[in-house]
Amino acid sequence: MTHATTAAPTATPTTGRPAHPGPVAPRATERLAQRPLPATAVRLDPEGHLGRWQRLNADATLPHSIGMLEDSGALPNLRRVTGEHDGPFVGYQFADSDVYKVLEAIGWEIGRTGTDAFDGFLDKTLDLLTRAQDADGYLNSFVQVDRPDRRWVDLRWAHELYCAGHLIQAAVALHRGAGRADYLALARRYADLVVATFGPEGRAGYCGHPEVETALVELYRETGHEPYLATARRMVDERGQDLALLGPDRLGAHYFQDHAPVRESPEATGHAVRQLYLDAGVTDVFTEQGDVALLDAMRAQWDSAHHQKMYVTGAMGSRHFDESFGDAYELPPDRAYAETCAAIADVQWSYRMLLADGSSRYADAIERALLNAVAASVSADGRSFFYSNPLHLREGHREEENAPSRRTPWYSCACCPPNIARLVASLHAYMATATDDALRVHLYSAATIEVPEHLGAGTVRLDTAYPADGRVLVEVDGELTGSLALRVPGWVAGLRVVVDGTPLAAASRADLPLDDGYLVLPPGTRRVELDLEMPATAVAAHPRVDAVRGSVAIVRGPVVYCVEQADHPDGPSVEDVRLRLDAALEVVPGDDPLPRVVGQGIAAEAVDPPLYGAVPAAGTATEVPVRLTAVPYAQWGNRAPGAMRVWLPLA
Amino acid sequence: MTHATTAAPTATPTTGRPAHPGPVAPRATERLAQRPLPATAVRLDPEGHLGRWQRLNADATLPHSIGMLEDSGALPNLRRVTGEHDGPFVGYQFADSDVYKVLEAIGWEIGRTGTDAFDGFLDKTLDLLTRAQDADGYLNSFVQVDRPDRRWVDLRWAHELYCAGHLIQAAVALHRGAGRADYLALARRYADLVVATFGPEGRAGYCGHPEVETALVELYRETGHEPYLATARRMVDERGQDLALLGPDRLGAHYFQDHAPVRESPEATGHAVRQLYLDAGVTDVFTEQGDVALLDAMRAQWDSAHHQKMYVTGAMGSRHFDESFGDAYELPPDRAYAETCAAIADVQWSYRMLLADGSSRYADAIERALLNAVAASVSADGRSFFYSNPLHLREGHREEENAPSRRTPWYSCACCPPNIARLVASLHAYMATATDDALRVHLYSAATIEVPEHLGAGTVRLDTAYPADGRVLVEVDGELTGSLALRVPGWVAGLRVVVDGTPLAAASRADLPLDDGYLVLPPGTRRVELDLEMPATAVAAHPRVDAVRGSVAIVRGPVVYCVEQADHPDGPSVEDVRLRLDAALEVVPGDDPLPRVVGQGIAAEAVDPPLYGAVPAAGTATEVPVRLTAVPYAQWGNRAPGAMRVWLPLA
Repeated sequence: MTHATTAAPTATPTTGRPAHPGPVAPRATERLAQRPLPATAVRLDPEGHLGRWQRLNADATLPHSIGMLEDSGALPNLRRVTGEHDGPFVGYQFADSDVYKVLEAIGWEIGRTGTDAFDGFLDKTLDLLTRAQDADGYLNSFVQVDRPDRRWVDLRWAHELYCAGHLIQAAVALHRGAGRADYLALARRYADLVVATFGPEGRAGYCGHPEVETALVELYRETGHEPYLATARRMVDERGQDLALLGPDRLGAHYFQDHAPVRESPEATGHAVRQLYLDAGVTDVFTEQGDVALLDAMRAQWDSAHHQKMYVTGAMGSRHFDESFGDAYELPPDRAYAETCAAIADVQWSYRMLLADGSSRYADAIERALLNAVAASVSADGRSFFYSNPLHLREGHREEENAPSRRTPWYSCACCPPNIARLVASLHAYMATATDDALRVHLYSAATIEVPEHLGAGTVRLDTAYPADGRVLVEVDGELTGSLALRVPGWVAGLRVVVDGTPLAAASRADLPLDDGYLVLPPGTRRVELDLEMPATAVAAHPRVDAVRGSVAIVRGPVVYCVEQADHPDGPSVEDVRLRLDAALEVVPGDDPLPRVVGQGIAAEAVDPPLYGAVPAAGTATEVPVRLTAVPYAQWGNRAPGAMRVWLPLA
Repeated sequence: MTHATTAAPTATPTTGRPAHPGPVAPRATERLAQRPLPATAVRLDPEGHLGRWQRLNADATLPHSIGMLEDSGALPNLRRVTGEHDGPFVGYQFADSDVYKVLEAIGWEIGRTGTDAFDGFLDKTLDLLTRAQDADGYLNSFVQVDRPDRRWVDLRWAHELYCAGHLIQAAVALHRGAGRADYLALARRYADLVVATFGPEGRAGYCGHPEVETALVELYRETGHEPYLATARRMVDERGQDLALLGPDRLGAHYFQDHAPVRESPEATGHAVRQLYLDAGVTDVFTEQGDVALLDAMRAQWDSAHHQKMYVTGAMGSRHFDESFGDAYELPPDRAYAETCAAIADVQWSYRMLLADGSSRYADAIERALLNAVAASVSADGRSFFYSNPLHLREGHREEENAPSRRTPWYSCACCPPNIARLVASLHAYMATATDDALRVHLYSAATIEVPEHLGAGTVRLDTAYPADGRVLVEVDGELTGSLALRVPGWVAGLRVVVDGTPLAAASRADLPLDDGYLVLPPGTRRVELDLEMPATAVAAHPRVDAVRGSVAIVRGPVVYCVEQADHPDGPSVEDVRLRLDAALEVVPGDDPLPRVVGQGIAAEAVDPPLYGAVPAAGTATEVPVRLTAVPYAQWGNRAPGAMRVWLPLA
């Protein structure tokens, strides 16, 4: 390993694995609000909420994904380049990236556990990729075989740089987590070609689907080779030429974030995943080079995305037509596109903003997306997935691949499943960060965090069933010479905090002396009992979110709930039930660690009014009481298909 | 003219033109609830509401469309076949149909007015088409030049039969309205090839985009040649093979109405225009052959479309992604696709159902679509058009071709503008019908209707400013030996009726002795004063239409209103205004014959709550009163672009 900003290259007491950085390891740390810990500094308990997910990911999602690379044609596509397979190219032009995302997940997984279960697959795949790679470093199984004359010709749609980006990210993960210099060398051969072609000495050009920008910055961070950074910077600087470089397209320049230069783009717009991947790269470029105009644009875009264009589940991108962000407040729950990859991309970008800008609002967004939109995308058995994540499934809904009623094992466009695998395999890296004088904890799940050297020695233990429960016990085992900053989530209203046996005199979030959303405890603190009250409550949307007017969503802490017909087999359709806000929402234990919520509703009896008619007078319908059971949205669709809704009309 | 069901081939007193049938002229009239009048039996006053539109269509829309056929490349595409043009094919593969729809409009226009203004264009275009047509009758400018090897290969997407259908409809209209046997001969050469290829002796096959079915039935009606009917019947019978004949497609079988046989398809589903064009053809086949299973399926589909999947404007097809009907009650006003062609197709289909099944609900639907969705698609100057017809334009909306902020002169997919032209040129044909013993009036606009021979002699005059006003004076000039049946629209609540000077003792629609929605007046009736009360009222949607919960639409009679920012330049955003139902809606004259409606609203002062937060307590915000001006939806977008909404949240 040539570079590791915050990690010492020795085995860590927490995991016993050689220390290595996580997915984001800035070199220029001077302007960061906070710095990542080594990924190896955090071990999630396998019984905690995030730890269970990570285990499911390792045991089910990742092996399943590896198998699907064969069945879906992604690996056979690459064997066409080497002559080992002579069928037609299968899938979308960017199918290579499915392979790379799985490889990235393996990198983090090996870093986390040291498993050798994937070594055979890694060796075999490296061999294939090495033989498939052109002498000059180029590697794209579609272009190489089917359109060798079209190399770098269709930047708009061919996804060559997008695939290169995922190869680079895989290689960085495998270098960091598994110490594989071979993959890094392979990726660098391609990256060097990208630099020669599109770098400072090359032609102006950038990918229709951003991704390579953040990858090149990370490769720079891993290698110290500045041309990678300069090339990413140039792509960010050139972008926004109204399709002059990409070529005309019926979807328009916004779709490709090419309508205006990045610095003049305060609105999150166009294809949601493209926008959010681009933003991760832009934030990375700012971090390394300090161009404040880039950070300003990112702050404005972050507000646009999170204050006007985000579903209550943290999902983004409401439109099916072009997978785009809609207009501000255009957030239909039934026809939500809400692609899994967009929620993942938002986690990745918001984490970079958290490092750069340091406000708990970024961590709030990460938590919302992670525990709801991303979590819902995986089935209980870890082997089937949602690509699109609607917040309302209508009774009698006609299922299509991207307008789903249930999860499927893979997709014709399979970007999402391996994206989940790579994110979840690296989840621990998102838990905590450090400043010069404080250890900062952002996410809560049972875990052990190694105290960075400059802040003392030993570990910080988090014991909690969060988000099943709002109690978090934080104990320092060793010596913390710096402060301990604990995030008090934005959803918190009431709480109790006991620090080394002494209760803090604060009963609500507003009473606490928070630093940018964090409760900062002085050096020497040993034990903090955080008890975040977690009643089930109803939230309403901004009045411009017309699609959910007069409705509320049930939430409990960071967890968004939904009502499924499966829990109301004998009741009226959940399409017709309204929630009474004058009756308490009751938290009830279920089979899952996360409780259920029971509310009181009413349904009109046997009324089927005309599609359009006179405004009904209040109280004219005969109504029956209905006991409404809500389950965490992340768990929906694991039982019998049927109507589901997050937003419940009010009685 | 070889066949005309209800028209005598003599000049009519009403128009002075040779009598001819309108677009739908059933041969088998024995099972019809009612029969069309000759198109020539109705003359719309050019000062009446529909007459003004027809004049605008003749003066502006039609000439504009003829010009655009050249500019858009549709005519040059055909000249590629004859070698007169050597550029690339321009536009979508079905661009020929734009030419045919304009020709159809000209046919009805000549029938209506006898104009010779289009004769030069007709002769020149006939010459081009004749030379472009293959010796065996085939005619498709894309396939002939670019893919001669692909004739009839891609039934799913190539639109060959769709274009053939529009050519046939054009020829029928030109034969009926302009007496052109030459176009009919050209179309028959193609139709005979279609019969040979897909008729009873040919292969099984049908078009991915239905349209040829209804066209072939009408050609049968015009020529008496039964194989045309048999071929349409076979296509209807074969349809529903789950893409076995059409070929696999990512959009799925529903998109093409190929998921199930027609008789087993009670739900309106898939691509809305395809579904509705198919249904027109199915209804035509029923009419001629009497297979009641087809009519039963059509009744069920009509209910599905109109009771669960119709916008309040009469528009249909909510989804942009695949231009499809959404699920039942999936009717977002902002992201409404609501294609103009779907509303036109619904008028055409509902008229066929009105003939076959004879209920005023079909006429109600025609009126709703015509006066709102279709009317809104044309600009005030008749030269620009909406393809998509949203019911809510958000502030700051980013315009795209099919997510419009304003009308445009033409479209890359130009199906809608010439579709408007052909419908409006034949509007008079939709006004009235006859049974054995009654003349039935369905639509109201100032007009003269010739009494069919079997019901007496002379004319029936309609004097009215409808829908600006609810008063309709009906006077018989001559002798009506049959009954006179006047539609009492479904929207009517209160009314007054005076028959030959005697008021009817009925103050509401419910009091009237209606026959299937029609007020039937005995033979000998001379003068009826119909005064339909037309207060401005608020209508609510079925509670499953989540997207407009807690909101109402302002309507007055059959006219749907909307609120535009253009009328509130100094007020708050119309996005933030709520309507008070406790204050009267006031009808106020404006510049247009249709009045405006003024309501009282309120807007919260300077409140921008979080995207998701606690349910606001009632009365917590400071609110200011707002005077809200609503204009007919059909007129929206003719002034400065800005927010527009049909559905207004309630205070």
